[in-house]
Amino acid sequence: MTHQFKGLADADVFSELIRLAQKPYDLTGAGALLADGRLARYVCRSELWRLHYGTERIDDLVLTSLQELADELRLVEQFKMMRRGAVMNRIEGFASENRQVLHTASRDIFDTSPVEPQASREARREIEKLKLFLSDLETGQLVNKHGQPFDTMVHIGIGGSDLGPRSIFEALKAYGISGRKVRFIANVDPDDASQILSEVNLATTLVSIVSKSGTTLETLTNEQHARQALERAGLDPACHCIAVTGEKSPMDNPDKYLRSFYMFDYIGGRYSSTSMVGAVMLGFYMGFPRVMEYLQGAGMVDREAEETDARKNIPLLLALLGIWNHNFLGHPTLAVLPYSQGLHRFPAHLQQCDMESNGKSIDRKGATVVTKTGPIIWGEPGTNGQHAFYQLLHQGTEIVPVEFIGFSHSQYGMDAVVSGSTSQQKLLANLFAQMVAMAVGQSSDNSNKYFPGNRPSCLLIADRLTPKVMGALLALYEAKIAFQGFAWNINSFDQEGVQLGKALATDFLKAMTDSSAKFDSLEKVFLNQLVDVS
Amino acid sequence: MTHQFKGLADADVFSELIRLAQKPYDLTGAGALLADGRLARYVCRSELWRLHYGTERIDDLVLTSLQELADELRLVEQFKMMRRGAVMNRIEGFASENRQVLHTASRDIFDTSPVEPQASREARREIEKLKLFLSDLETGQLVNKHGQPFDTMVHIGIGGSDLGPRSIFEALKAYGISGRKVRFIANVDPDDASQILSEVNLATTLVSIVSKSGTTLETLTNEQHARQALERAGLDPACHCIAVTGEKSPMDNPDKYLRSFYMFDYIGGRYSSTSMVGAVMLGFYMGFPRVMEYLQGAGMVDREAEETDARKNIPLLLALLGIWNHNFLGHPTLAVLPYSQGLHRFPAHLQQCDMESNGKSIDRKGATVVTKTGPIIWGEPGTNGQHAFYQLLHQGTEIVPVEFIGFSHSQYGMDAVVSGSTSQQKLLANLFAQMVAMAVGQSSDNSNKYFPGNRPSCLLIADRLTPKVMGALLALYEAKIAFQGFAWNINSFDQEGVQLGKALATDFLKAMTDSSAKFDSLEKVFLNQLVDVS
Repeated sequence: MTHQFKGLADADVFSELIRLAQKPYDLTGAGALLADGRLARYVCRSELWRLHYGTERIDDLVLTSLQELADELRLVEQFKMMRRGAVMNRIEGFASENRQVLHTASRDIFDTSPVEPQASREARREIEKLKLFLSDLETGQLVNKHGQPFDTMVHIGIGGSDLGPRSIFEALKAYGISGRKVRFIANVDPDDASQILSEVNLATTLVSIVSKSGTTLETLTNEQHARQALERAGLDPACHCIAVTGEKSPMDNPDKYLRSFYMFDYIGGRYSSTSMVGAVMLGFYMGFPRVMEYLQGAGMVDREAEETDARKNIPLLLALLGIWNHNFLGHPTLAVLPYSQGLHRFPAHLQQCDMESNGKSIDRKGATVVTKTGPIIWGEPGTNGQHAFYQLLHQGTEIVPVEFIGFSHSQYGMDAVVSGSTSQQKLLANLFAQMVAMAVGQSSDNSNKYFPGNRPSCLLIADRLTPKVMGALLALYEAKIAFQGFAWNINSFDQEGVQLGKALATDFLKAMTDSSAKFDSLEKVFLNQLVDVS
Repeated sequence: MTHQFKGLADADVFSELIRLAQKPYDLTGAGALLADGRLARYVCRSELWRLHYGTERIDDLVLTSLQELADELRLVEQFKMMRRGAVMNRIEGFASENRQVLHTASRDIFDTSPVEPQASREARREIEKLKLFLSDLETGQLVNKHGQPFDTMVHIGIGGSDLGPRSIFEALKAYGISGRKVRFIANVDPDDASQILSEVNLATTLVSIVSKSGTTLETLTNEQHARQALERAGLDPACHCIAVTGEKSPMDNPDKYLRSFYMFDYIGGRYSSTSMVGAVMLGFYMGFPRVMEYLQGAGMVDREAEETDARKNIPLLLALLGIWNHNFLGHPTLAVLPYSQGLHRFPAHLQQCDMESNGKSIDRKGATVVTKTGPIIWGEPGTNGQHAFYQLLHQGTEIVPVEFIGFSHSQYGMDAVVSGSTSQQKLLANLFAQMVAMAVGQSSDNSNKYFPGNRPSCLLIADRLTPKVMGALLALYEAKIAFQGFAWNINSFDQEGVQLGKALATDFLKAMTDSSAKFDSLEKVFLNQLVDVS
């Protein structure tokens, strides 16, 4: 099914874009930012988010060619196929996962006629189980053996079962049910579990273990750490543990878990934050109605992403601007810089979601790609970053395109006027100033005060970081990543690149455990056993 | 003084290195990792750390040329000059900070004859003040108005006054005095202060405000948030606030602060983690003896870094390998991947320290540099990253050199055997496996299972992450960054690139506060006021 599509370099408009990239729009010229009302024209509006892109190095000609690219590569058509259950996770002619890609179904649960009814039905079934679970906690049906309510959840997962949920929890910390706490364990480093487990009151703690296959090494190991800690505290793990896993996985076992919630093989880990992977923990923390708002926000964006006019479709436009910066202007990385403390871990989630999806070198027919695929994604929140790595953004020898994220209002609404302005005003003033500084630059007689400018950026802005807005932001990036994968004609939904390390780790582990008598340090094993594994 | 030095492209050996880079060592060949005993030979040992670099794309010829480069550019000589008080923070012929660079003096306090006596004397004086402060807390001399001991410190700073201290606190969390807690506020986003201040018991909290100039916008704003919160709680801020600031700065005021500790203009923010900027908070958390161990570890590395043989000098060798990967093999980024949960924020600190130091485009005479300077630094802890962005590291179109960091033993020493091995063994097995997988790759009939290999990495390994080992790691990277800056002949110690954004932010802020009647959203101000600022 995917063989019918072509990739970036095969598009007729490819050479035109290369030509246009020889002389990209100069943002540093006098009045360049204001010419043709570009700042007002280059805004894309959706129900919850707006994208300002007048500070990118583009003009109407580039936009027209990018639209042609989107049309020619049938990006929106592929997105529609994906949402409707096409088997998009495959490599033609080679053994591959051969799966549908239906994370969108996990939030297509509000409409009476969802676009892929079967998956939405399954999503609804899990949502009903979640609703019951949360209501049982609320009404005191579900309590510990002393009849006390559970006030803490320890979420154990890694990668897709960790970064997304964790970053969204951080973003929505302001919306918790009073007294409820959530902690996370991911790393197989035993210090991670040791620290977290020593900090919670285990008697009133639920441990939610998240692994689709039920076989993830790190997660099973940390589950054991948690079970042993519960036992040491005189508690029965079966009365404290919850499973989020695939139906019939080794973890799908009512004898060992209080409740089980299901994951489906058509939802990849890094796209699972709106499935039970994220929803169980978020539901525990902020209650059922707010989880539903979060899912609603994501669902809204999925529908909006089916718009074919790139100038009216934020994720499509973001994808195209990204391709312009990466493939045509040649910038190898992308910084995502949220001016919001709540989003401090969101770039880490995007780093995962984007780089694991699009860090590929073969196309959907198994041929080596001829263009660059996914860039390196990184970032930290502003204004903190301004006092850290922005020096390089302004005056370094590597040009880094930036996606800024901001909000008109703070979450807590608590603020103070210092030197005549609020913190929220200072925050946004800094954000806008950075966009202008990067674009326009500054000339100076002192070469140390010279700023070359022409460093492209754009801004995603919404009114306030609420559960609904967060769901929308997540879905917006998921759609952007899918659009870029389609444009590169790669399979964005598998992760074969993680397998080799896994296999070699097993070899090393065997060497270490076999040889404990022979070697006094693991490092020596490294040196001595390389013979066998390399 | 700095005019006597030349940069990378002016070195006689530059063209030889370019020639060698045409055919870098092939790590994928059969037995390539084992040839000539390279894994055993390519290890650099210091008292606390070992660097394994056999998985870099180098051979003896490259190493010899890199050594020539170091000699020709007089890298160690410059490091020695720096430690002994030379004015290294300057641009010749242009207005610049014109300062000494003496962060190393803050840990040169153990020797009877420190290399720069004046700065070490000043460091010792502050250490004595810290010792007294900590002892007053210990003995109950310093308590709140109800006579209760202080159990929490809120550390307010940003950039250099935040990321370093915060990442080291996270790394040494296992070593806290029982009951002591530390929280951080940095962002001008009011949600940051709101959240942290709502989570602590203000009555038993000390607020440490850190700003060298005493004028940092974010820090002063957050100080006001904290003071207002203390007042609302019926507490006297002057009895809860501590200042870490320059002598005679606006913050050096005994009427407003319980204690003041001094910073010096010869220590840049991003290099200040071993000055009072880090030491006050770390001392509060883990006590005086452990802070001293931390400083001792850093001091040891400073002395070791004066070794001229690159193969015996870890920071110098790291710097040269980095230049090889960046300038000669052409890789624009560097990932720092600690296999240690404690170091989860250390890459963010390095991102700051490295990119703010070496993200420059002019040399020390004000001329535009002709080679690339500092790379983009990023990273997250393993094994977490393996389930996130490693897909791109193994199979993406961008090649990312990696510096792995690991430890033979965990911090807490709590572990569990699951499936026949401990978590610590699993952690290290994964680390070693990644190095080999990246280097060697894998051929396959299924192009999706093909790994090109030849992705360079190295490993810094120590026995356990203790305060001393942490101090050493910090100093090791500080020295590496300095060596690279010397090699590029840039001033690594100023940050003019942050000034333009600051100035424009002031303009935007003025527009926002002036125009509150005219505009109903800050975003509109952005669009409307650009005329004035661009």
